[in-house]
Amino acid sequence: MTEGGGFLIGIDVGGTKIAGVAVDAGSGQLRAERRQPLDGAPLERQVAAVARDLIETLGDGRAAAIGIAVPGLVDAGTGIMRLAVNVDAGELAIGPLVADALGVPCFVEHDARAAALWLVDRDGAEGSLAYLSVGTGISAAVVIGGRLVRGVSGLAGEIGHTHASDDGPACPCGLRGCLEIMAAGPAVARMATEGLARGEVSSLAPGASPEEVYAAAADGDVLGTAIAEGVGVQLARAIRTIVLLYGVDRVVIGGGMSRAGAPFLRPILDELDREKAASPLIAHAFTPNRVELLPPESNPGPWGAIVVARSGLGGAAAAPEREVADE
Amino acid sequence: MTEGGGFLIGIDVGGTKIAGVAVDAGSGQLRAERRQPLDGAPLERQVAAVARDLIETLGDGRAAAIGIAVPGLVDAGTGIMRLAVNVDAGELAIGPLVADALGVPCFVEHDARAAALWLVDRDGAEGSLAYLSVGTGISAAVVIGGRLVRGVSGLAGEIGHTHASDDGPACPCGLRGCLEIMAAGPAVARMATEGLARGEVSSLAPGASPEEVYAAAADGDVLGTAIAEGVGVQLARAIRTIVLLYGVDRVVIGGGMSRAGAPFLRPILDELDREKAASPLIAHAFTPNRVELLPPESNPGPWGAIVVARSGLGGAAAAPEREVADE
Repeated sequence: MTEGGGFLIGIDVGGTKIAGVAVDAGSGQLRAERRQPLDGAPLERQVAAVARDLIETLGDGRAAAIGIAVPGLVDAGTGIMRLAVNVDAGELAIGPLVADALGVPCFVEHDARAAALWLVDRDGAEGSLAYLSVGTGISAAVVIGGRLVRGVSGLAGEIGHTHASDDGPACPCGLRGCLEIMAAGPAVARMATEGLARGEVSSLAPGASPEEVYAAAADGDVLGTAIAEGVGVQLARAIRTIVLLYGVDRVVIGGGMSRAGAPFLRPILDELDREKAASPLIAHAFTPNRVELLPPESNPGPWGAIVVARSGLGGAAAAPEREVADE
Repeated sequence: MTEGGGFLIGIDVGGTKIAGVAVDAGSGQLRAERRQPLDGAPLERQVAAVARDLIETLGDGRAAAIGIAVPGLVDAGTGIMRLAVNVDAGELAIGPLVADALGVPCFVEHDARAAALWLVDRDGAEGSLAYLSVGTGISAAVVIGGRLVRGVSGLAGEIGHTHASDDGPACPCGLRGCLEIMAAGPAVARMATEGLARGEVSSLAPGASPEEVYAAAADGDVLGTAIAEGVGVQLARAIRTIVLLYGVDRVVIGGGMSRAGAPFLRPILDELDREKAASPLIAHAFTPNRVELLPPESNPGPWGAIVVARSGLGGAAAAPEREVADE
């Protein structure tokens, strides 16, 4: 079954779990999948364990490369990551450490960028698009003409910490009124709790999750609908910023919040329609422009990591290979 | 005197005037300069007249190409422009029209992008930077690894119409609270008039210009200082957005407002320092990062247009040459 140089492994590190896939390097065909909750062990060991399990399960070929998608700042050249809102917590050389542990070249990328690379890879390599991930945090990844915008700082796309509201609460990043504290998952849960504390009539219970808030909005709950509409306005403005700054003609929204589907997307599109009706400039910027949800059944994390692994073998990142050669 | 294929002409179309330079194509040495106020004639005729005047003055060589920097949306491939906040006013095929009138290849670019190209050309072609133009309007141009970010829409960098304030006034673009209506030249003049109408004590007179407001701020005028600080907060947030989205490590601020110098720049840097002190993420994003003013004596419009002309001859834009061949 193995073709063209063995198989590729893609590992996605989420907020609560690790998901991994192994595919044939030549055909891209899925060979094996793993999914396991994060535990307290060092992250590089958990990632290496999932990758090793996939390698041992296949047994009939060589792992040509491992791609790792992580929810943090990444230096793709060195495979070093740090957490976005906690940059003082120090660095983790996850790429070199996993490469050393398994003797396989290892390439690391920010999870939103890995997802954007996967979307472009799937739809045609010369494409341009922005992928906006809305979950526990908010970040964007942009591909222009088939090339990822990384920026000199490696921070390109960190839209979650742009200014969204003068009256917004304190953000864990240290600023106030950031987009993320106004519109990500924890903000939805907080607004529900605050609304209930103000005595607003709602079917929601204290401690409702974002999923429950959107389900309530879909059922016509007044508080849930108001929260969904407020988040929609914030995310529509963020998409306006993305489209005006990068000039992309396609924005794909993914991340945990996007799985709520229509009750999540509809308020965003409604606000964009209001902006387009009010402003010929915005109408022009969004023509042609598609704003769409990532289909809920897609799994861009590990599949994006596969694209990262394949791109890495093509020469986009070299340092982890050097680490392997040092063994 | 003429070397290597004659001379290049750079024309900058401003809000009130046209400025043009002619340089040796080989050495880049300045040969002649023109500056004249805009009148009511069709814009392409005024641009062609300035270019023709420069060509006739030199007389001893061939104009190899004309670059035109314009304050509007540009399709660099076709040389067609439209006004940013007035996109319904229709298109002007300024590149083909000037090329036809003079029989010289003509290349057109957004003025902020032309300035960014000039800065990168001057400082090293592989550089990355954002140029933020703050004058009658606000727009940005970004070069990453020596390549201009244009976007599919041609609109990349239109930060002036991103959302800045929930309480902001109506913007001529049709939206409310845009950065431009909060922080560009007309906003400074409006805030001075409003402050005086509220009875605030100030040395400023009704109808004060942005230059007068910044001069008053430099003299310690309370109203002038408050306006400069408010604009500084807005522009610091815009620079944060630019640095987070594009990941650039250098932001150069130009445009008419920047000529106020320290009273304009200081409040921007002060707010960025407050953000960096509050947020390790922002400190990380701005390390290393230089935020600086374009030196007031520099003249990026016509010199940027020269870079556009030279790049155009190198193959970056072709359509106006076809127009010439049609003659």
